[in-house]
Amino acid sequence: MRLRHIPGSEDAIAVSPHVIGQPEKYQGNFHQKFGNDNPIQIEVGMGKGRFIMELARRNPQINYLGVERYPTVLLKAIKKQEELRLSNLYFLCVDAKSLSEIFAPQEVARIYLNFSDPWPKDRHAKRRLTSPEFMKIYDRILTENGTVEFKTDNQELFSYSLESIPEAGWKIDWSTRDLHHSSQADDNVMTEYEMKFSSMGNPICKLIASR
Amino acid sequence: MRLRHIPGSEDAIAVSPHVIGQPEKYQGNFHQKFGNDNPIQIEVGMGKGRFIMELARRNPQINYLGVERYPTVLLKAIKKQEELRLSNLYFLCVDAKSLSEIFAPQEVARIYLNFSDPWPKDRHAKRRLTSPEFMKIYDRILTENGTVEFKTDNQELFSYSLESIPEAGWKIDWSTRDLHHSSQADDNVMTEYEMKFSSMGNPICKLIASR
Repeated sequence: MRLRHIPGSEDAIAVSPHVIGQPEKYQGNFHQKFGNDNPIQIEVGMGKGRFIMELARRNPQINYLGVERYPTVLLKAIKKQEELRLSNLYFLCVDAKSLSEIFAPQEVARIYLNFSDPWPKDRHAKRRLTSPEFMKIYDRILTENGTVEFKTDNQELFSYSLESIPEAGWKIDWSTRDLHHSSQADDNVMTEYEMKFSSMGNPICKLIASR
Repeated sequence: MRLRHIPGSEDAIAVSPHVIGQPEKYQGNFHQKFGNDNPIQIEVGMGKGRFIMELARRNPQINYLGVERYPTVLLKAIKKQEELRLSNLYFLCVDAKSLSEIFAPQEVARIYLNFSDPWPKDRHAKRRLTSPEFMKIYDRILTENGTVEFKTDNQELFSYSLESIPEAGWKIDWSTRDLHHSSQADDNVMTEYEMKFSSMGNPICKLIASR
């Protein structure tokens, strides 16, 4: 995604009631922010937030945290949340690398990764959100039955992930190279990016991983 | 379920706008009833309808048909639908045996079977909704990627189904003997029966089957 700097976006985020500032202070206690003990699911790299907002609307019995490190992108999600005011959704403006400092062990029930940066160069492989390095972080913060659900239209990143995830000691519970024509097509919630690229005919890949 | 006759229930069903009378007339054209081409999912033996109504509320992009052969039970679902008026939901008062006369080949995208009658006697095995005989009916009406999702708290019926479904030429894509403590617990929509029996500590079994 091409990023444009929006003047004042950091300030707008700092004062937004929809963003949890200094989230590490809630470590082990995010349920207090929601005022209930419902399971917490997170999306890492949520972009403009269409996906996680639709999930939050459909599933009031689940708490959602959208993670996005770019303030200018997060700002667009905040604007939508100002209209929708979903009580089971908050945002975090942090880098994925810091997740294990933000969440307590087993605090998260599911992690969604949608159309993450492919980092095509080998020397950047560790930056891919499905690398063994990141899977180790997820392993720490996910509940025992927790899952990672990953979607991408990047065939190379998908092939890489089908190898890197088992290498990290995880199981691939389900996978497809054509989600929109699979048995799970009807349940699929599309991201902004997915709507655009699937309409151009790109097949969408998805996998679900657990330990 | 103990059935009480409610006087006039057949008449109430015959005139209800939420029930499709003579459904075989819509064979191959159920989408006309909904006024769109969204995928159609059905629940066979929906009882009072909590499950399918919650799905219909969550997923406006999917059309739902609830099948229930007992008029006195169906009447309770109709009463709820009179309040909710979900535009993507209708009911059929028919026997599961007649499904292949009601739907055209590949007209249904998913079939839900929840807490079906276990028919514990061997000589009644063919009446179980996961018997090879019924799987053959589902095979005909389901789309190529269509799935059957089956839940029960009856361990014997579940063990039987784990054998009868592959015998009928299907794959078990996923299964658990403790749904409420599985990776799919958070997404689960409970039926009336499931709420009652799981609160008594009975584990709930689930499987997903495809061809």
